[in-house]
Amino acid sequence: MIVRTCLPFCLLFAAFLPLAFAVDPLPSWNDGPNKKAIIDFVEKVTKAGTPDFVPVEERISVFDNDGTLWCENPLPFQAIFAADELKTLLPDHPEWREDPSVKAFLKSDIAALSANHYKGLLEIIALTHAGITPDEFTARVKQWLATAKHPRFDRPFTECVYQPMLELLSYLRANDFQTWIVSGGGVDFMRVFAEGTYGIPPEQIIGSYSLVRFEMKDGKPVLTKTVDSLFIDDKGGKPVGIHTFLGRRPIAAFGNSNGDQAMIEYTTIDNPRPSFGLIVHHTDAEREYAYDANPKSTGKLTTALEVAPKYGWTVVDMKNDWKTILP
Amino acid sequence: MIVRTCLPFCLLFAAFLPLAFAVDPLPSWNDGPNKKAIIDFVEKVTKAGTPDFVPVEERISVFDNDGTLWCENPLPFQAIFAADELKTLLPDHPEWREDPSVKAFLKSDIAALSANHYKGLLEIIALTHAGITPDEFTARVKQWLATAKHPRFDRPFTECVYQPMLELLSYLRANDFQTWIVSGGGVDFMRVFAEGTYGIPPEQIIGSYSLVRFEMKDGKPVLTKTVDSLFIDDKGGKPVGIHTFLGRRPIAAFGNSNGDQAMIEYTTIDNPRPSFGLIVHHTDAEREYAYDANPKSTGKLTTALEVAPKYGWTVVDMKNDWKTILP
Repeated sequence: MIVRTCLPFCLLFAAFLPLAFAVDPLPSWNDGPNKKAIIDFVEKVTKAGTPDFVPVEERISVFDNDGTLWCENPLPFQAIFAADELKTLLPDHPEWREDPSVKAFLKSDIAALSANHYKGLLEIIALTHAGITPDEFTARVKQWLATAKHPRFDRPFTECVYQPMLELLSYLRANDFQTWIVSGGGVDFMRVFAEGTYGIPPEQIIGSYSLVRFEMKDGKPVLTKTVDSLFIDDKGGKPVGIHTFLGRRPIAAFGNSNGDQAMIEYTTIDNPRPSFGLIVHHTDAEREYAYDANPKSTGKLTTALEVAPKYGWTVVDMKNDWKTILP
Repeated sequence: MIVRTCLPFCLLFAAFLPLAFAVDPLPSWNDGPNKKAIIDFVEKVTKAGTPDFVPVEERISVFDNDGTLWCENPLPFQAIFAADELKTLLPDHPEWREDPSVKAFLKSDIAALSANHYKGLLEIIALTHAGITPDEFTARVKQWLATAKHPRFDRPFTECVYQPMLELLSYLRANDFQTWIVSGGGVDFMRVFAEGTYGIPPEQIIGSYSLVRFEMKDGKPVLTKTVDSLFIDDKGGKPVGIHTFLGRRPIAAFGNSNGDQAMIEYTTIDNPRPSFGLIVHHTDAEREYAYDANPKSTGKLTTALEVAPKYGWTVVDMKNDWKTILP
């Protein structure tokens, strides 16, 4: 009797299930060919029994961070953190004033620091981030993230993230994709906030690094950050980092600059699996920044934009494709 | 009516559920303090609402491979693979005969090759594994694993694994632990078989590596294995590798030699979380090998065995603790 009474309600509930799943997974994206391309790709590779189906363990997606998941203007945020650290630490390290990158920094020579895709900036980062334990470093980053604010948006840096990209991360994970960060930023820096901000755990972050040093000190294990064996996870370094850390070829890659071109090429060209490449093109000076077409800017997007049509990459026009930018 | 008829059966089923969960998760382990220590630790950290509870995302366990998950005698298996490769490749590379490690190899000078925890062997590995794409390398390893046999056990090397450790991996994963390999072996080598043999995916393997080189060749992305930036994931390198690749401190570490001591120290000493360290002591010459007490042997276990009681590490006596060794 109870069963019979329940039956109509169960059927009613079942009837609404497809509607529940039909909720727009990317509400901050305007409808159009780019949003459609994302959804088509995800639906294609998750449809069992088709030649395009990709098993769950191979659903690897990789995301650049600076300029792809969060802003990178007026400078990549880790550079702003390093600048704040340098100001604090410089009085105790007069010898650093001889370092060409520090000199460039003290002259605010952004062009020199940004040359070779931030080589100078990364050296400053290495200098200001070494000689301490990872726990001390984490504490400093946490403190900075809790207090520092973006100069234009007047909010914590962890809130200068792109709402449409947060939705994309969730959408991919809901379809059993792993979502990895593959960024030129320092891996220890990103690990402090990526879990809370993006839902990406420390073990799914590939970034620039120097090796720590291990020793037993007073009977306790101690790691110390160094500047040894610096690996820069940018340009051709990105596929190298992906192979070394992850060991699988991604099927989807998301970036915003020439620094991401090699990663997207590695993901999409000659891949036996269906694959997807996407570039976030910064076109909205009003709501964010329109900087990537300027060959002198950080986050330069020239060659990657040129090859995009040839390889079928989706180029997101922030101004037109995104309803909302910051949450 | 249907509901009422079903009810007694449902209750009966529910009554048996606890019994189902009481099935021995480690059937190849003899009952005793070591088996109990493992189960006590897992039950302790998974019991919600207690101070010892560890959230799922922090349940990281790390396993050495050679001598911990599979045999490492008469030589670590990757060294046997490298020897087979070297025999094949040497006629085309006469210049290699000048390399001190190759010389030691050609004289079968195992002591020289094994000195400094296999430094010479690792150089041979680097030499025989470089200049090809990871895909070519994977194909060679697969081919070797499919045909080569262990000289004593007369079975494929992937079947020379420890049944009790396979059960331990499953038991930890059933309790939402991540099970990582942290081994001196080459990461590209282990990634070929670890998923099929241990259920450990490529992205949860930390090993020795050289960086690959990335280039676009005839319009296609190509990775090439090199001998550049060799990182040896052994001794103090293990905590370094764990920090760099994984970015979380493990709460359980499993090894069998002095090469694992730093990793187990890093896991168990001064860890704010409850932690567990275990050493597999090779004591069974009849069913496997009893080699680790010999200071000249590969897989030497001396200092790590000395400090084990002080740090409360569990020392598994293979002869007495394991009912079965190979599956």
